[in-house]
Amino acid sequence: MSIEPASQLDAADPLARFRSRFVGADDPSVVAYLDGNSLGRPLTVTGERLAGFVAGPWGRGLIRSWDEAWMAEPMSVGDRLAELTLGAAPGQVIVADSTTVLLYKLIRAGVDARPGRDEVVIDRANFPTDRFIVEGIAAERGLSVRYLTPPHDAGVRPADVAAALSERTALVVLSHVAYRSAFIADMAAITQAAHDAGALILWDLCHSVGALPVELDGCAVDLAVGCTYKYLNGGPGSPAFCYVASRLQEELRQPVWGWMGASDVFAMAADYRPAKGVRKFISGTPPVLAMQPLKDMLELIAEAGLAAVRRKSVALTEHAIALADEVLAPRGALLASPRAAADRGSHITVDHPKFAAVTAALWGRGVIPDFRPPDGIRIGLSPLSTSFAELERGIEAIASELASLAE
Amino acid sequence: MSIEPASQLDAADPLARFRSRFVGADDPSVVAYLDGNSLGRPLTVTGERLAGFVAGPWGRGLIRSWDEAWMAEPMSVGDRLAELTLGAAPGQVIVADSTTVLLYKLIRAGVDARPGRDEVVIDRANFPTDRFIVEGIAAERGLSVRYLTPPHDAGVRPADVAAALSERTALVVLSHVAYRSAFIADMAAITQAAHDAGALILWDLCHSVGALPVELDGCAVDLAVGCTYKYLNGGPGSPAFCYVASRLQEELRQPVWGWMGASDVFAMAADYRPAKGVRKFISGTPPVLAMQPLKDMLELIAEAGLAAVRRKSVALTEHAIALADEVLAPRGALLASPRAAADRGSHITVDHPKFAAVTAALWGRGVIPDFRPPDGIRIGLSPLSTSFAELERGIEAIASELASLAE
Repeated sequence: MSIEPASQLDAADPLARFRSRFVGADDPSVVAYLDGNSLGRPLTVTGERLAGFVAGPWGRGLIRSWDEAWMAEPMSVGDRLAELTLGAAPGQVIVADSTTVLLYKLIRAGVDARPGRDEVVIDRANFPTDRFIVEGIAAERGLSVRYLTPPHDAGVRPADVAAALSERTALVVLSHVAYRSAFIADMAAITQAAHDAGALILWDLCHSVGALPVELDGCAVDLAVGCTYKYLNGGPGSPAFCYVASRLQEELRQPVWGWMGASDVFAMAADYRPAKGVRKFISGTPPVLAMQPLKDMLELIAEAGLAAVRRKSVALTEHAIALADEVLAPRGALLASPRAAADRGSHITVDHPKFAAVTAALWGRGVIPDFRPPDGIRIGLSPLSTSFAELERGIEAIASELASLAE
Repeated sequence: MSIEPASQLDAADPLARFRSRFVGADDPSVVAYLDGNSLGRPLTVTGERLAGFVAGPWGRGLIRSWDEAWMAEPMSVGDRLAELTLGAAPGQVIVADSTTVLLYKLIRAGVDARPGRDEVVIDRANFPTDRFIVEGIAAERGLSVRYLTPPHDAGVRPADVAAALSERTALVVLSHVAYRSAFIADMAAITQAAHDAGALILWDLCHSVGALPVELDGCAVDLAVGCTYKYLNGGPGSPAFCYVASRLQEELRQPVWGWMGASDVFAMAADYRPAKGVRKFISGTPPVLAMQPLKDMLELIAEAGLAAVRRKSVALTEHAIALADEVLAPRGALLASPRAAADRGSHITVDHPKFAAVTAALWGRGVIPDFRPPDGIRIGLSPLSTSFAELERGIEAIASELASLAE
C-alpha cells in the first residue's frame, strides 16, 4: 500500500490554513515541531493579547478589573472550555492552580466523600504526578493503592478496571488518553463500572482536552482535571482546570480553604464557609494574567470545530504510523501506540533502544519530538498547528539518525 | 504644624522619576491610585516583556526552553527575590502556586514536623486565607488553634505571642505587616520566642515584600510565604513565593507530591522521592509565563534600592497621616494604623462609618483606595509608582465625599 505524499495531504487538509496563525510556523530553524502535546505553540494573537491586557484591563482598569471581570473569569473561561471541549454544561468547570494541585484537591475531596472505603485504584501507566498525588494522599489518609498494569502499548480496559473494583474502592483515578501510548480509555464504560461499585471516578484529561471530543456529562463523570498548555496552547505553566459534576458540588469538600473559595470573599472577619457551586474548589487568587492566552485558543477551536480537529488528528497519527512502519520498523523501532484510530489520541510513541541518543541528535537539527523513558520517542501532533509535511520531515529525520547510529 | 505641600515633596523625591515607568501613570481618568498594595501597576516594559516572551522563548524556543531556562526559573527568580527583598541567601526561595496553596503546603509541613504538639498560634487580625488554611489543617489533623487578638489599629507584640506559646505549640503563623492596620510585627523577637518554645514560625510577607526590607536569614525565620502582585507588580494572580530555611529543608515534607518536586522529574517510572533542597516544595508545572513580569520589577527595585524605597514609603505614609489628621479627623474619621513610622508598613487605614458609601463614590471619580470591612478605607502607597500629589488628591477627595454625605 503506498503512502499518500504529505504535500497532497496538506493540500487537501481543510484546517491547513490555521497553522499560519501560530508563532514560528514559518521558522526555518524548526524543521518539525512534534511536541505540541507537551507545550503547544503560541498563537500570534497571544503576544498582542498579553500586551493589550497589560495596557488595558491591568494598567488602566487596575483593581477595578477584579470587580468588573476577573472575579468571574475562572468560571466564565471554565464554562467556555466546558462547552467547546468537555461536553459539560455550565457551572462545573473552573480554571485554577496547576494540574497537580487540582488533583490533590479533588482526590482528597473524592476519598473523603467515601468514608469506610479505603482503596484508590490507579494504573501504573498513569502520569507520574497522578500516581504521586494518589500515593501521597493514600499515605496521609491511611488508604491502600490498587494498581492496574495495562500493556505497554495500550491502556486500561473496562473489564480490567471492573475486576479491580470492590466495596473497598473509594475512588478510581485514570487518564483519558495515556501520556505515553496515547490509548483512549473507554470513559463511559469505566465510569459506569466505578459507579456500579459505589466508587467515584476522576479522569485526567491532559492528553485529550482540545484534541478530541470529551463527553463528561454524557459519561456521568464525577471529577476531571486537565492542563491547558498542551493542545490548548496556554503557555508554559498555564493554569489547569477541573470539573466537578453539579450533583456532587454540595457534598464534596476540598482541603485547601482559601479566601477566593469562600462564600463571601471580602467579608474578611467571618470563618470559612465554602462558596456555593464549583467556585468552592478555588483556593487562592485566580491566575488571571496567565489564563488570557487560553481564551484565544478556545475561540480558534470554536472556529475550526472540535470534530474537524479530531478528524485531522486521526489523519496525522495514521500518517505517522504509516511512515513509521515504512522507515522506522525496518530499523528495529516498535510502535508502542494503538493501531486502531478509535483507540488512539493525538500522538504516537515508537520505541527503540537508541532513541535517547537519537532524540538528542534530532533536537540539534531542529526536529523536536519528546523522549519518554526508557526508550520511546513520542511524536505529538497538535492538529491545528502541525502539517503533514512537518510530520514527514520529522519521521525521515528519525530514520536518518537511526541509520547514522547504525553505521 | 504646617504640612509640606505635595508639589515640594515630589520635587524633592529622589525616586520620583521611576513613576513614569509604570503604565497609566499619565492616565487622567485615574485621579489617584491608592491600591497598589492590592494590585500593583504594571511596568511599561511588562507588555513588551510578555510579547517578547511569546515570540521568543515560547514561540521559537518551544519545548527546548524548559531545558534551557524554565526548569530553573522558580529557583533563580526566587534567589533574586531573596537577595533583593528578603534578606535570604540562595537556595531557600521558590516562586510557585498561589499564596494560599503555599500556605497549605508549608503549614502542613510545619505541623507535621512537630509531632506531639497539637496547637497552632495565629492572630484574628491575620488575613482570612491564612486563618482559613490554619483552621482547615487544624480540622484535618486534629489540632487546636490558639488565637491572639491584637488591637484593631496595631498588631501582635512579642510579649503577647510569648504568652500564648507552650510545649503544645507546633507552629506560629503571623503576618509581618498586618493587611488592615499595616502594623509591622517584630520578626526577630517573635521568631526567637517561637524557637524558645520549641515551635516553628511561618511569616506571611504579602504586605511587606518589596516595600520594606525583610531579614529572613537574620531573624532565623523558619518559613515564609508571600505574593508578588502587590508591591512586586507581578499582575493579577501572579505566582506566589515561599521561603524554607536551608536547615529545615531535609527534614520537612510537603503534602502535594508532584512531578516537578520529585528528585528526577523525567524518570517517569519511579516512585516519588522528593528533590533535594527547596525544589521539593514545588508540586506541578511552574507558572513560567506568569512569573515574567516579576523579573523586571525586581530589577527596578535593584536600581532604586530597597532602603530608598522604604524611605519614600515612610514619607508617603507620614504625609497621608498628616493629611488625614487635618482633613479627615475633623469629620470623624479615625486612624486605624500605627503613628510611629517604625511600626508601620506602606499603607494606612482610616475608619469612618460612612466609608463604604464613600469608597463607591470615590471609585466613580477615579480615586481608587480599597475598602476593608467593617468601615475602613485602606490607602495603599506603592512607593515606586505613587506620587505625593496623587496621595493628596486622594485624601482631599475622601474629605470632599465625607462632606457631601454630611450635607
